Amino acid sequence: MKRTLTLIFGTLLLLANVVSAKSKTTIDRVEPAFWWAGMVNPELQLLIHGNNISDLDASLSYEGVLLDQVIKVESPNYLFLNLTLKEDVKPGKFPIEFKNAKGKVVFTYEYELKQRREGSAQREGFNNKDIMYLITPDRFVNGDESNDTVDSMLEGVDRENKGGRHGGDIQGIIDHLDYIQDLGFTALWINPLLENNMESYSYHGYSTTDYYKIDPRYGSNELYVTLVEEAKKRGIKIIMDQIENHCGLNHWWTKDLPTADWYNYQELKDKPVTSHQRVTLADPYATEGDKRRHADGWFVDTMPDLNQRNSLLATYLIQNSIWWVEYADLGGIRQDTYPYPDAEFMSDWSGKIMAEYPNFNIVGEEWTSNPALVSRWQRGKVNQNGYVSNSPSMMDFPIQESLVNSLNKEKEPYTQAFNGLYEMLSNDFLYPDPFNLVTFPDNHDTPRFWDQVNHNFDYFKTGLVYIYTTRGIPQIYYGTEIVMGNNDPAGDHGLIREDMPGGWAGDKANVFEGKGLTDQQKEAMDLVKKLTNFRKNTTALQDGELKHFSPVNEVYVMFRFDDKTKVMSIFNKNTEETTINLDHYQEVLMGAKKATDVISGKTYDLTSGTIKVPANSGTMLVVE
Amino acid sequence: MKRTLTLIFGTLLLLANVVSAKSKTTIDRVEPAFWWAGMVNPELQLLIHGNNISDLDASLSYEGVLLDQVIKVESPNYLFLNLTLKEDVKPGKFPIEFKNAKGKVVFTYEYELKQRREGSAQREGFNNKDIMYLITPDRFVNGDESNDTVDSMLEGVDRENKGGRHGGDIQGIIDHLDYIQDLGFTALWINPLLENNMESYSYHGYSTTDYYKIDPRYGSNELYVTLVEEAKKRGIKIIMDQIENHCGLNHWWTKDLPTADWYNYQELKDKPVTSHQRVTLADPYATEGDKRRHADGWFVDTMPDLNQRNSLLATYLIQNSIWWVEYADLGGIRQDTYPYPDAEFMSDWSGKIMAEYPNFNIVGEEWTSNPALVSRWQRGKVNQNGYVSNSPSMMDFPIQESLVNSLNKEKEPYTQAFNGLYEMLSNDFLYPDPFNLVTFPDNHDTPRFWDQVNHNFDYFKTGLVYIYTTRGIPQIYYGTEIVMGNNDPAGDHGLIREDMPGGWAGDKANVFEGKGLTDQQKEAMDLVKKLTNFRKNTTALQDGELKHFSPVNEVYVMFRFDDKTKVMSIFNKNTEETTINLDHYQEVLMGAKKATDVISGKTYDLTSGTIKVPANSGTMLVVE
Repeated sequence: MKRTLTLIFGTLLLLANVVSAKSKTTIDRVEPAFWWAGMVNPELQLLIHGNNISDLDASLSYEGVLLDQVIKVESPNYLFLNLTLKEDVKPGKFPIEFKNAKGKVVFTYEYELKQRREGSAQREGFNNKDIMYLITPDRFVNGDESNDTVDSMLEGVDRENKGGRHGGDIQGIIDHLDYIQDLGFTALWINPLLENNMESYSYHGYSTTDYYKIDPRYGSNELYVTLVEEAKKRGIKIIMDQIENHCGLNHWWTKDLPTADWYNYQELKDKPVTSHQRVTLADPYATEGDKRRHADGWFVDTMPDLNQRNSLLATYLIQNSIWWVEYADLGGIRQDTYPYPDAEFMSDWSGKIMAEYPNFNIVGEEWTSNPALVSRWQRGKVNQNGYVSNSPSMMDFPIQESLVNSLNKEKEPYTQAFNGLYEMLSNDFLYPDPFNLVTFPDNHDTPRFWDQVNHNFDYFKTGLVYIYTTRGIPQIYYGTEIVMGNNDPAGDHGLIREDMPGGWAGDKANVFEGKGLTDQQKEAMDLVKKLTNFRKNTTALQDGELKHFSPVNEVYVMFRFDDKTKVMSIFNKNTEETTINLDHYQEVLMGAKKATDVISGKTYDLTSGTIKVPANSGTMLVVE
Repeated sequence: MKRTLTLIFGTLLLLANVVSAKSKTTIDRVEPAFWWAGMVNPELQLLIHGNNISDLDASLSYEGVLLDQVIKVESPNYLFLNLTLKEDVKPGKFPIEFKNAKGKVVFTYEYELKQRREGSAQREGFNNKDIMYLITPDRFVNGDESNDTVDSMLEGVDRENKGGRHGGDIQGIIDHLDYIQDLGFTALWINPLLENNMESYSYHGYSTTDYYKIDPRYGSNELYVTLVEEAKKRGIKIIMDQIENHCGLNHWWTKDLPTADWYNYQELKDKPVTSHQRVTLADPYATEGDKRRHADGWFVDTMPDLNQRNSLLATYLIQNSIWWVEYADLGGIRQDTYPYPDAEFMSDWSGKIMAEYPNFNIVGEEWTSNPALVSRWQRGKVNQNGYVSNSPSMMDFPIQESLVNSLNKEKEPYTQAFNGLYEMLSNDFLYPDPFNLVTFPDNHDTPRFWDQVNHNFDYFKTGLVYIYTTRGIPQIYYGTEIVMGNNDPAGDHGLIREDMPGGWAGDKANVFEGKGLTDQQKEAMDLVKKLTNFRKNTTALQDGELKHFSPVNEVYVMFRFDDKTKVMSIFNKNTEETTINLDHYQEVLMGAKKATDVISGKTYDLTSGTIKVPANSGTMLVVE
């Protein structure tokens, strides 16, 4: 891993600064503010920020803690302290003293090494036993109107603005964990909750302005911990949405960058935006320029591209991720824009997290229809160029796209129905662990699934049955259970992330109380609830074997099975009721005599050799 | 590798046959009819076919040759002799004696172990120094009218029938090797020439009825050897088109199958055709039934699917391939329908050929747009399911399809021009040896390239410049040099494989003499000739490094370079003359000052920082 250590240059600069520095010395931040005893990695690096803090020397004395190095950088307002925590270091507090040139202690910071939760290191991350619910927190439930607008934050509430803040918050989620539990979900991915103090579009959360602080319009660090605790009581793991690639332009760093290379292209007035050519990372023929235009370009002009080749920044980001796992007792991380940060850094980032928590899980986003590219990022993949990734899971965009194409049959008009989806799943030979991929009909960035299937309710239901049948970890976006969608084919983000009815005082409909829902919405909610709870209780759908049959007569059949249960899902694209010849499936049916529909409860006699399924349908059966 | 040895069952059957057999005993065939001393593999298996031949015992006596086993099968008309040839066995002839139960010698067959050509084992197969010309022999040149119709063959000549035989032959190719050499080609892939004694559609050659005999309507085994010799004199390697998956229904086996399992589905009256679900070979979730429906189904009802799990048949096919390399002094093999025979057999087949000829080359056909599937078959690929392939090269269908899509831009309307092609090439990380793939604008099975680009001559020329620039081994189908094509979008095979003008007495136009060609045809021929000869003499285009730039402003730039030459090809999709900013390409240009157009000879001054290229064009420059 190549990183730029700017120490020498920084020190030279610093000398000049010291001479001219006349303003008062302060300490504004120590990050991470505390840490834990007993972590696997003995190294800890503290970022100290304060006016002319580099004028001071730092020292400490605590058994089991060594201050190995004090690093000064280009800005005089930073110090980085490299600590080693010995294996047997005890939890406790100790002062870090900052002295001036005359040896006088100017500041003392009481640092704490906390006691870890029992079993913290062995925590189980989300896995294929789980079904994941995705929430855009600003748009779910406004549980605390008092934090809708916060003085210290630039953007206030404006529910009329589709790109503005609507007031949803952590309290709203806490208040409706019972609803999520009742639907059957066991994991909750919430779009970013960290401070996003931007002038506009701050609601989406992808412009971090403080890596250690929950946005006050969502709540507080303490309330986030409460959310995790309350979720845990209900068997729900919390998955934090993290972003290593970029921060928000209003991050406090921007006004006082530690080093000139902290952000990529900081030297240019007009920051180039990323080319989005993620393929350059795998391409054996890519030029260095193209690689840089992809990886170093800014995501948008309000999101500075972080230079993770700077080892100080790299360490900062890795520690921050681990801090949140440990502090908030997380059940997983979803990593945004996985192929955009420096790839070697991402290997290190995911590797260090998984070293601390070997049973944890991380799911990365590589938005492509090419499974060969997605598979490169999954832990265990042997890549041609030697790249080693450590992320156990990835979002399965290729299956998402294939599912929609197969349902609409637009892009595969000359083959059997579902052949594209069938062929895409057969590409699983590319993945070291396909059963650990996250599968989904839509998310906060794609058009709503309802819109993707052109408001065809049969396709919608069939798609859900597929997602709950196939291998992986199903993820459902909030509102899918009430067929949320709109008529915007371009997929306007503000519209995709619609307010959940009932989440705001005065809403006419209320999803949580089942009021004001159409029959179609009720049917969808019943479907999601039954599928989620069935999958939650059926190991065959979690890590059971998968066999699928090449589509015939516009019918695609998939089996999931283990010692306990055999599930047969039938995806039918015929426009009339269809007779299924069971002979074709006896290799897996093995003479099963009876089938029970998971949704309707209807039973079928299989001994006649055929069963009938409705036109355009997904039918999930337990056969025995 | 699982194979079915039917010896025991066959022997039991035989006893019954012997009792009732009264007809005369004969010997009709010994295959291979001769072999060579000094091969790597010491094993040789002879197939003896004749009426009730299994009534006889076989024996031989020759220093260095052991008769290890005599195998009898279900049909009484076969014997298989397993021989071991010791390493020091001398070339020579020896009798194999066939004796009856009373010990009387009934037949003697004089077997020969020939002397190998010098350097035979170390022969160099086609590689990326070569440019390949593809000929459908029935449609190229009728060099010998006397063999147009042959009494012993079921189908005679009928040039009016687009699916009939038109009379082209080996003599016609021999007579025009100078033309092929003049165009610059160094390798010649000819569609199958083995006997295809079928009632109709025999011209395509993919229904073999005798694996050891050139079809008399094309010539003879001896004339084929002459072709190879004459080609060699002109620096042209001959690549034989072989088919392991199926034979023709009129193969002499059909009337007297050695074993009941010689053909797949022989037991069924209506033979199921293959499902073409090649993905089942890679799919971790495929059922055994789907695998069989793909691999064992007949290609069409006149092409029996060979069961290579039968070890006698497997050995027969492998020896036959090696026999042709050695007998005819081949420069390569093109293997038809690579994923259709038993995959383990194909590993063995390609492995045994490459063991005899380590510098040889085999190119397999896997017709898919998915490079992950193609890459599974290339030697050196580490496959997830442990499958080991031994074929050094594969046909690059994904690039072919991407090239056409990018030129037409139909399937990639929302991105930069050529982005699909650029992204497809970046998938080369999937291949262990992408520089050994065969790249092509079209072949005998696809619609003509001219038709694929909708008769746009600019696209046509741009596509050719791409094929000659990118990595791999270019392959050009006969007639491309004169823009051959027709208006049939369905790609009727008979029309694709149009007669070469000038190949028949009385043809109005004559390609070989340059008579009757349109200006467009002359321009295309000039282009092909210049590109082929330039690539032939430019190592940078053969195995030089490749760098390409992510398309910008509808322009895609690719470089090929080595110590001697730097080639810059510019693919422009703008509909007006376009100014290229050279700054963007300096990472590879490295200050080059001058460029020369390979086709026009025009020179460019690069020091001004820009050059202009025509609308919709492919421009190949040497920069220095």
